[in-house]
Amino acid sequence: MKRGVKMEEEKGIVKIKVFDLETDEKIVLIRRDDAEKLDLKSQDKIILQSKEGKRVYATIYISNVVEEKNLVLVSNNLAAEIDIKDGDKVKISLAPIPKSIQYIKKKISGQKLDANEIYQIIRDIVDGHIGPVEIMGYTLAVNYVEMDMDEIEALTRAMYETGNIIEFDAPTYDKHSIGGVPGNKVSLLIVPIVAAAGLLIPKTSSKAITSPTGTADTMEVLADVEFDVDEFKEIVSKTGGAIVWGGKLELAPADDIIIRAERTLGLDPIPQMIASIMAKKMATGIKHLVLDIPAGVGTKMTTVEEATNIGRLFIELGDRLGVRVQCGVTYGAQPVGHAVGPALEAREALQALIKDGPASLIEKATSLAGILLEMGGKAPIGYGYALAKEILRKGDAYSKMKEIIEAQGGDPDVKPDEIPVGEYHYEVYAPVDGFVTDVSNIAVSAIARAAGAPKDRGAGIILHVKRGHKVTKGDKILDIYAERSTRLQDAVGVLHSTRPIIIEGMLLKTIPERPIYTYFSQGSSSE
Amino acid sequence: MKRGVKMEEEKGIVKIKVFDLETDEKIVLIRRDDAEKLDLKSQDKIILQSKEGKRVYATIYISNVVEEKNLVLVSNNLAAEIDIKDGDKVKISLAPIPKSIQYIKKKISGQKLDANEIYQIIRDIVDGHIGPVEIMGYTLAVNYVEMDMDEIEALTRAMYETGNIIEFDAPTYDKHSIGGVPGNKVSLLIVPIVAAAGLLIPKTSSKAITSPTGTADTMEVLADVEFDVDEFKEIVSKTGGAIVWGGKLELAPADDIIIRAERTLGLDPIPQMIASIMAKKMATGIKHLVLDIPAGVGTKMTTVEEATNIGRLFIELGDRLGVRVQCGVTYGAQPVGHAVGPALEAREALQALIKDGPASLIEKATSLAGILLEMGGKAPIGYGYALAKEILRKGDAYSKMKEIIEAQGGDPDVKPDEIPVGEYHYEVYAPVDGFVTDVSNIAVSAIARAAGAPKDRGAGIILHVKRGHKVTKGDKILDIYAERSTRLQDAVGVLHSTRPIIIEGMLLKTIPERPIYTYFSQGSSSE
Repeated sequence: MKRGVKMEEEKGIVKIKVFDLETDEKIVLIRRDDAEKLDLKSQDKIILQSKEGKRVYATIYISNVVEEKNLVLVSNNLAAEIDIKDGDKVKISLAPIPKSIQYIKKKISGQKLDANEIYQIIRDIVDGHIGPVEIMGYTLAVNYVEMDMDEIEALTRAMYETGNIIEFDAPTYDKHSIGGVPGNKVSLLIVPIVAAAGLLIPKTSSKAITSPTGTADTMEVLADVEFDVDEFKEIVSKTGGAIVWGGKLELAPADDIIIRAERTLGLDPIPQMIASIMAKKMATGIKHLVLDIPAGVGTKMTTVEEATNIGRLFIELGDRLGVRVQCGVTYGAQPVGHAVGPALEAREALQALIKDGPASLIEKATSLAGILLEMGGKAPIGYGYALAKEILRKGDAYSKMKEIIEAQGGDPDVKPDEIPVGEYHYEVYAPVDGFVTDVSNIAVSAIARAAGAPKDRGAGIILHVKRGHKVTKGDKILDIYAERSTRLQDAVGVLHSTRPIIIEGMLLKTIPERPIYTYFSQGSSSE
Repeated sequence: MKRGVKMEEEKGIVKIKVFDLETDEKIVLIRRDDAEKLDLKSQDKIILQSKEGKRVYATIYISNVVEEKNLVLVSNNLAAEIDIKDGDKVKISLAPIPKSIQYIKKKISGQKLDANEIYQIIRDIVDGHIGPVEIMGYTLAVNYVEMDMDEIEALTRAMYETGNIIEFDAPTYDKHSIGGVPGNKVSLLIVPIVAAAGLLIPKTSSKAITSPTGTADTMEVLADVEFDVDEFKEIVSKTGGAIVWGGKLELAPADDIIIRAERTLGLDPIPQMIASIMAKKMATGIKHLVLDIPAGVGTKMTTVEEATNIGRLFIELGDRLGVRVQCGVTYGAQPVGHAVGPALEAREALQALIKDGPASLIEKATSLAGILLEMGGKAPIGYGYALAKEILRKGDAYSKMKEIIEAQGGDPDVKPDEIPVGEYHYEVYAPVDGFVTDVSNIAVSAIARAAGAPKDRGAGIILHVKRGHKVTKGDKILDIYAERSTRLQDAVGVLHSTRPIIIEGMLLKTIPERPIYTYFSQGSSSE
């Protein structure tokens, strides 16, 4: 009589060969016969464990590309993560069903999650145990069911604890802008102003996902932005400030993964957004944060009331987590300054530090910097703004920026007009006389992205007019720059199907909707 | 002066080489230099077009596995779809952003969709233009926002129109069960009863996704179930009935794709479920449908009221689409019959056709068949049930089933006990005296699946007692069958962490919750 309940021989030990594949997913290829022996089906989630005991989740695919028995091909991102190479033996086995699945289902059904359940979801996201499909489910559940402050706090802590944590010797300050406004290069002014006043401001920032440029993209025109934790700390200890890309520092890494899934459908539910921002700040030990919340059409917060409510949530969350938060609701209904796109914005920011810049840029940067100076005791309440302006006017901010650029491996003496911009350009002229009644964030972003920004650093837009400006027919109102002719063509296509600049008195709508008017224009190169 | 707006040379013509990969997704691999030339990033969605003009959406990955320039590797599922082979030239280009994305966003935001918008979503799903992440977003939007009857009708038509449509010469009848109850092999009785009465019943059915067996899995024990459209029509014209797998017929193919995404989080929103069922029925030209809606704990509809509401929706939708629907709300709080799992259920169904079977199986099958006989004018209202019983009793249903089995390539003379079941088995005995107060659908399904069902055809459960039965300590209450010892072990593990059979008088709950009691049991083989 056979015993029904008996362990079989240990199985699943296979040799690996690494293959190159650029992907977010960790991929393993296996022959059909080996897969059947191990009861694995194509697209199963598996655990792959190295001899040293390092484990990683991966997706297995059946393929006859694998030449030998007892061999699996693993993608290079997987091999790098657990440090294995051709010929190494690993153990593969079917992954258990992720615990977080039931917690996501619980949230979908409308229930409140406890801290452990939220932690498990974030842990499984960071470990790659659940993928974009489940994350989309989680995100939409958060979107519809929402989260209360207990859940947001737990989510923040979970995101913070599942990544790197950086500690500085002195209190640190930071500024964060909630996105949506193109041309928002204020961090390139705020960081040197605050650092010049003697406060530590280790700014980590993001690269653009759906916008024409992120602070990290713009800074990358002037200096390197990819540093590891030790290099980052050294730059900050040397200069008091830094503007680096957060991605390489692995701070709250769940955020990047969630954003990749969310952006498929343009989602960004508020509880998730708040927790992500705070988790990243906590991960660099920030204790004092000024939050720039732009309000207006084309930003994330359409009204000042909405922006105020979000601000209150941040302040309450900060209280629970030991972070002092002050919020500035800013005017966000049109782009900040005149330039949009990495190189063009770097030019404009540098110019503003050296000599002068557009009022909207200077005012916004010094107001926000002023709040940080007050929080840090560098100015009495009500005097931060004036001090920030003074630091900028005296050139101290520019000197500090040069130090930071140098510390980050850039050329501190670069002049704004030495920064290369796209060779192809297209000029747009006012078709009528009138006042500018609107500059559309959405259209400006769409055109700049079509022109190639942020990937093509020199692509973007210069706005020659802003809301309230008077224009005469034939005045130049817009320049589009691109690095490639096809991109310029794409941008012009978008230009003619959107309305980046509205001049009063013009036809507002046709039925059916179609391009309203053709701008006077001229295709040319900059040479 | 260069003109900014000029087309570059036509590009994107590449040679292909097919590689084997078992996946739902269509995959193309490209070298980094070729990708950069074409402005393609890894994981971009592309369109691949053959010389004959056939187009397919695919996901492109950058990999140095590709040996030559101007060559891409394409997965075999892709090559088969547009009929290309090694050395063929194709044109690849970045796919435009799917139109359906904006409609999914619209639904997420809570708005009603029109018929064209819904059609576009389903079209893009069927074409592979949007994938599981977007489908999860769509499904959850439908789950939270719901759909009204206009939208459900448009959804049904869209799903129906994007697949194959089969027409029969005579009116066709069908029965459909909404899932959730294990052991529900009633179709194997209903189809031959209805066909024996002279009505056309071309039943297409599904394979199990989350249950221990589907009708197609159970039928596959007795005969082939995979046929193309012409073969299917021939079987039906020969015998009047068929029980085949719908998957190969490409009826409303969006359904299978949506289900694959949904099941990740166990979702099945009602509007989508209703539309999927009706679309598949319309695709085989069904004009008369009886719907079995099991109600009770462990089914999709917990209460009779819920089941009744769903029934009303089906009837209203049927009215709009020209399908006459009658609904039977059936008792679903415990398994139907005694057997669960493909081979064990095939045995039980065949036995019921030949001689006799469990009352729950016979009563349910003849009640539902009776409704169809009345709809088809074979019996006056109120007499269908008696006629169905008579057809069964006289052996006409068994004779018809033998014809169907033969037409589907099976052995018509197979006897129930000749059908092989799992070699490994485990017996469970009552630990106390008492009455059976509950048989859990969920636990029974979980144990049968852990034992290997439906993949291992011989795996499953025999229940020796049902609700209300009196048992004496030591009576055999359950048999578990498995084809592999490890699976039997898994099933026993599940047995001891669930409660498939509750005998009154026993402890109902411990705090903290843990296995309540250990069944008397014995591991053995069937030999």
